[in-house]
Amino acid sequence: MAVITKLRINSDRLHNRINHLAEIGQQPSGSICRLAFTPEDLQARQPVKQWMLEAGMAVRIDAAGNLIGRYPGKNNTAPVLATGSHLDTVPTGGRYDGVLGVLAGIEVAQTLKENGLQLHHPLEVIVFTDEESTMIGCQAMAGTVLLDTPNRYQPKTGESIQCCLERLGGSWEQLRTATRSRADMAAFVELHVEQGAILERNGVSIGIVQGVVGMQRQKITIIGQANHAGTTPMEMRQDALIAAAELILGVRKIALKMPSQPVATVGYINVLPNAVNIIPGQVELSVDMRDLSQNCLEEMLALLQDKIIAIADSTNTQILIQPLLTVKPSLADPEIQQSMKSVCQQLELSYLSLPSRAGHDALEMGRITDMGMIFVPSQGGISHSEAEYTSPEHCTQGANVLLQTLLLLDQSR
Amino acid sequence: MAVITKLRINSDRLHNRINHLAEIGQQPSGSICRLAFTPEDLQARQPVKQWMLEAGMAVRIDAAGNLIGRYPGKNNTAPVLATGSHLDTVPTGGRYDGVLGVLAGIEVAQTLKENGLQLHHPLEVIVFTDEESTMIGCQAMAGTVLLDTPNRYQPKTGESIQCCLERLGGSWEQLRTATRSRADMAAFVELHVEQGAILERNGVSIGIVQGVVGMQRQKITIIGQANHAGTTPMEMRQDALIAAAELILGVRKIALKMPSQPVATVGYINVLPNAVNIIPGQVELSVDMRDLSQNCLEEMLALLQDKIIAIADSTNTQILIQPLLTVKPSLADPEIQQSMKSVCQQLELSYLSLPSRAGHDALEMGRITDMGMIFVPSQGGISHSEAEYTSPEHCTQGANVLLQTLLLLDQSR
Repeated sequence: MAVITKLRINSDRLHNRINHLAEIGQQPSGSICRLAFTPEDLQARQPVKQWMLEAGMAVRIDAAGNLIGRYPGKNNTAPVLATGSHLDTVPTGGRYDGVLGVLAGIEVAQTLKENGLQLHHPLEVIVFTDEESTMIGCQAMAGTVLLDTPNRYQPKTGESIQCCLERLGGSWEQLRTATRSRADMAAFVELHVEQGAILERNGVSIGIVQGVVGMQRQKITIIGQANHAGTTPMEMRQDALIAAAELILGVRKIALKMPSQPVATVGYINVLPNAVNIIPGQVELSVDMRDLSQNCLEEMLALLQDKIIAIADSTNTQILIQPLLTVKPSLADPEIQQSMKSVCQQLELSYLSLPSRAGHDALEMGRITDMGMIFVPSQGGISHSEAEYTSPEHCTQGANVLLQTLLLLDQSR
Repeated sequence: MAVITKLRINSDRLHNRINHLAEIGQQPSGSICRLAFTPEDLQARQPVKQWMLEAGMAVRIDAAGNLIGRYPGKNNTAPVLATGSHLDTVPTGGRYDGVLGVLAGIEVAQTLKENGLQLHHPLEVIVFTDEESTMIGCQAMAGTVLLDTPNRYQPKTGESIQCCLERLGGSWEQLRTATRSRADMAAFVELHVEQGAILERNGVSIGIVQGVVGMQRQKITIIGQANHAGTTPMEMRQDALIAAAELILGVRKIALKMPSQPVATVGYINVLPNAVNIIPGQVELSVDMRDLSQNCLEEMLALLQDKIIAIADSTNTQILIQPLLTVKPSLADPEIQQSMKSVCQQLELSYLSLPSRAGHDALEMGRITDMGMIFVPSQGGISHSEAEYTSPEHCTQGANVLLQTLLLLDQSR
């Protein structure tokens, strides 16, 4: 790996900008409500666009409403090096989720400009549209939007996706023009807060993401027989909730036995008739399983299916399984991960490798280009809350790792 | 035991009357909706009162709205022998639940009258008020109504209990006058359909009830920590639904290990926030345990409390337990059970002894007098449904066992 430069981003400017954006959509509780496509979302894009221009970038909006700043390269026809994240939040969002990645990207360009530098590759900083809900921005870039079913994309504003995209300057009809390919994007690197507590628990400054986990989400329906809780002897019961309890514990056991440390959760359950004195006749529940390895996900699903057959048999119930959602894992490029490790060593920052167990724009970008992600610690692992906090030092460290990683990739690509 | 007489009830009349009452409140589905205190409930009492008068009984209504027919005894100041049941139904009731016991009681009186006979004791046939919901009728007779808290009695009509009682000719203010005692009631015997499948499964005609089970009903609250189903590693979770699943299976195991074959049910569960991608932070559930033995109920409750402590510890949750309802078991008098066995042997009817695991008017009557119950088979164990069915033969057999048991008790008391 090449020598690390002395270049550093401007820490004060980064934090002033984080504070500036935190006021747009701020609620009395201190949380931030900046749902995609709302006036607050549009309002936040104004200073960001201005800062892109100040950083020497040309700014455009693609058909998916993604706001893209381009800092020219020495070879301006080369595939771009890209970074970025999102400005939209959940209804009770924090100050760092998304924002940090966007502002750190702009810092990279502005630092280059202020030092009179250009990369060989053009550099793009992307504000992706609606990461927190439809993920239409990154999916359009990855070409994974189903154009014949616009109703599958339901913005939180309650409006149609077509109307929402136009408000941002995009166009559903032109969506295919937003799609990028490996030929015009050499790599994508995203900086994001961890939204988990692994870095903090390990006292580490930088997380080098191995990939964004995939997901298998299933709907399970258990059909037993509702009956009188007094007059039905234990051995004559077809209690759907007994079967559900065995399944809930079984799902946990499946996750615990896999070496890659996947997670598996039953978060939703609906019982019928749900009365104190009636044996449950029917239960619906969800199973959500996540791991970085597609093989692991498939093995867990197979174990779940075996478990279901055994439980249906032992509880005298019928159990149906239906897929709700399948997302394939998106692995980070090994060379990008290696570059990040070199950078951390040179900057004398502690680091560890970990999967991202939450979804990110990088998940989709990893489908079309070499992808990498940098995590910085979230205090208490808390996110999507006014209590979301990452220290200024950690934010700065993350942005400098992003800068140096892009510099390294510029040389190696 | 004394010799069984040749007296038999009039089977045709009994079935004509069952059919007659089945038309009052009958729904298009064939089920019967005759909620207590409704016009249908009042309407059903009219022919019943008429049939009591035809059977030579004096009819009165007590302060709890109980309709009481009294057939005089040779010693008319002796404590009464009582029988009866109820005419009200659940919203989707069947034709036999309650009705059979009332009409069989009237058959006993009418059979005596038609044969010019009198017992030594006066005979009372009681139509208890609102067995299916508040049980105000039998509770008032047993003196267990809490007079200072009328709001605890919520008739299904949505009206106040005071207003409902007056409609039947009763009076909340006078309720104490409905209370009976061992001094004025020598015994109470109720004929009822089983509402379970034990007699049918054993191919037996008559069930001799050992008692009506008691109930321990608890509300359990499990407090864990809601968290992101993706980013929270399995070992850091405080998943309230995992604790609930262990508890649901634990409750079943507790019931299965007790020799008296109690039942225990988790019928109700409420999960927060109940979202596919969030680890459950809080669960509320109900535990309903029933057995004939108060010792068994107390032992089960102690085992449940031990289990809760162990589960809270192993799942890193907090678990609270609150009593919802406690009903002590009501045992049938051994001599009455023995009389029923003699009667079955003499009538050459197969029989077995079993607990009643559903509540009945006899539960309360057993608190103030010697109590017995006769069950006849329910086809498929089904009740509270238009599919509720007991064959005419079984109904007649049950009524004749009631008649002969009362004749025996008249001699022995």
